[in-house]
Amino acid sequence: MQTVTESPFTLLHSSSQCRARCGEVRTLHGTFRTPVFMPVGTLGTVKGVTPENLKELGAQIILGNTYHLFIRPGHELIRSFGGLHGFMNWDRPILTDSGGFQIFSLSDLATITEEGAAFRSHLDGSKLFLSPEDAVHVQEALGSDIMMVLDTCIPYPATRDEARRATALTGRWARRCREAQSGTGQLLFGIVQGGMYPDLRAEAARELIDIGFDGYALGGLSVGEPKELMLEMLEASVPHLPPEYPVYLMGVGTPEDLVEGVYRGVDMFDCVMPTRNARNGMLFTSRGRLVIKNSCYRDDRRPVDEACNCYTCRHYSRAYLRHLFTSREILAYQLNSIHNLHYYCQLMADMRQAIAEDRFEAFRSSFYALRETPQEER
Amino acid sequence: MQTVTESPFTLLHSSSQCRARCGEVRTLHGTFRTPVFMPVGTLGTVKGVTPENLKELGAQIILGNTYHLFIRPGHELIRSFGGLHGFMNWDRPILTDSGGFQIFSLSDLATITEEGAAFRSHLDGSKLFLSPEDAVHVQEALGSDIMMVLDTCIPYPATRDEARRATALTGRWARRCREAQSGTGQLLFGIVQGGMYPDLRAEAARELIDIGFDGYALGGLSVGEPKELMLEMLEASVPHLPPEYPVYLMGVGTPEDLVEGVYRGVDMFDCVMPTRNARNGMLFTSRGRLVIKNSCYRDDRRPVDEACNCYTCRHYSRAYLRHLFTSREILAYQLNSIHNLHYYCQLMADMRQAIAEDRFEAFRSSFYALRETPQEER
Ligand SMILES: [Zn+2]
Ligand SMILES: [Zn+2]
Repeated sequence: MQTVTESPFTLLHSSSQCRARCGEVRTLHGTFRTPVFMPVGTLGTVKGVTPENLKELGAQIILGNTYHLFIRPGHELIRSFGGLHGFMNWDRPILTDSGGFQIFSLSDLATITEEGAAFRSHLDGSKLFLSPEDAVHVQEALGSDIMMVLDTCIPYPATRDEARRATALTGRWARRCREAQSGTGQLLFGIVQGGMYPDLRAEAARELIDIGFDGYALGGLSVGEPKELMLEMLEASVPHLPPEYPVYLMGVGTPEDLVEGVYRGVDMFDCVMPTRNARNGMLFTSRGRLVIKNSCYRDDRRPVDEACNCYTCRHYSRAYLRHLFTSREILAYQLNSIHNLHYYCQLMADMRQAIAEDRFEAFRSSFYALRETPQEER
Repeated sequence: MQTVTESPFTLLHSSSQCRARCGEVRTLHGTFRTPVFMPVGTLGTVKGVTPENLKELGAQIILGNTYHLFIRPGHELIRSFGGLHGFMNWDRPILTDSGGFQIFSLSDLATITEEGAAFRSHLDGSKLFLSPEDAVHVQEALGSDIMMVLDTCIPYPATRDEARRATALTGRWARRCREAQSGTGQLLFGIVQGGMYPDLRAEAARELIDIGFDGYALGGLSVGEPKELMLEMLEASVPHLPPEYPVYLMGVGTPEDLVEGVYRGVDMFDCVMPTRNARNGMLFTSRGRLVIKNSCYRDDRRPVDEACNCYTCRHYSRAYLRHLFTSREILAYQLNSIHNLHYYCQLMADMRQAIAEDRFEAFRSSFYALRETPQEER
């Protein structure tokens, strides 16, 4: 049985005008500043970049996917290499998800019972099973600094009854996860489900707080619902969470989502968007998005973003990046990924500074004003 | 009309027992030490690595492919970016080939006339033409430090008459290339053809020397002939070249080929093998080759090569590299390419040192002795 632990979160600054706040989270591999964006390293590598690239571009913490690592190369193998940190050569904090989301989205024929999730590997179809206790033990083997409870996913749209039953099961699993911990010092976050039903989310939050976690995540958002509904759910959930603990919005999202999340009190984010879009040639800039293969960049001498000081923008022109991308060169994916991840991490650093100086509202206005630049002038 | 220039080569050391020698070549972007291996950067990037990676792993000079850059993104675009150096962020020497080999091997329906080569782009089938003068002017636009004359390729096997006619045309084209130079200070190397006929090679060498080049390359080798025949052709060609100029064996080859080439007096090499094999998971080591996907490496904690101090070997295990490769992660190609290129560059550095200390024969013996390690003990 887990005893209630001290919060790993220290609040440093709060906006006087909104819920935006700045703080830090202590983990076994050091402290990170919030609000923070966590690059996604699904299989023990953030796609297209080295650990040194990640440090240079300002990544404080990365995320690993338990589902993927459980299937390949296996958590016991990773444990024998000193956990994910030793295996992949990363000495800063790591958060691992529980595998719940991928079991629902990637594997065939997932069957949920009170006991856990039975599913088939998306790689070879082999039969697998993950209980809430297994999810914790796998993450303990991975050695992540922050573990997530195993949760069930609620499709959108879902009836109130479907949402209620899945949320209740997530609550029971959350308690089993907390009780399964072995005292490794790894943090464990609960996940607030509840679908698009504010009262279910409030009730889910109360239940998790009753168990007591090191942080609280909002799950089941950005699953196809309208943007306004997502923001509404954020507003309906965050006020029910204890302010002395970190709040994590899972799997979200666009730069605009990050700004709106911070505005509503979120401390932590992750999303595959910066790396996935990089591989598709979509680059984020302070003035909006660039599709690098467009012929208008054929002889464009400018960096991707003149406001950016990432490795890519310091050394390479849009024309060169377009050439690499149209030639499908590996370096295209490297340079695009470095820029996009830097953009996300710098956006968070800018928000932290704005909050510290209590000018977050002004920051948010100028963030949107800059993005109204017409495409041809970017 | 080009006047005969001083050789860019300075001989530093010669073996007392064989033709192996150590020297340096001066170019517009600095001096490199020979014998040297040039990583191939076909399209303005050495596949899988950054310029900083190349410098760290010891690359002194890289190669660009004129055929590919002429087609995409075009030499005039590259000229407007300050040449290949400015376009790709590389400030050390670059050698460009003339496009001859790719015209024969990649494009459809190449037609050779006295005037030049008519061919179709392998990308879109568009009709293109390259004369010897064009090849020089394109390379002048690319701004390479060492340009190559346009040559014709001789298939293997070829009759004496085919080889004789192609070699004669290469000689006439070589003279036109030399006369087409604009006095940019870029070096121009002639290419000795002659097929597998020693007397044709000797005659081709004499003709090129009569024109006068800044270095001499051996072309048309490693095109399918038995290894012994290639070495025989090397032995039949190098003694006919002026020892005060650099000798470049084009497109060759394996680590063993490099050792045998140096032994026979070659100063410069290029080959796609280290990077291409890296992408296929074949890693070079001092004890032989590793196929990284093999299951014997599943939990192998050792680096690829315990004798290697490259970035990859300093930070990652064979098990991690195997995991990345079987997961098709971009980082697999990056790390494998860094290791293989480092292996090639370090091999050259080791040969330079052995020559300087006049122990090249001993070096060569121990190079082969180490490679007799059984696969399972590597
Ligand atoms: Zn940038
Ligand atoms: Zn290595």
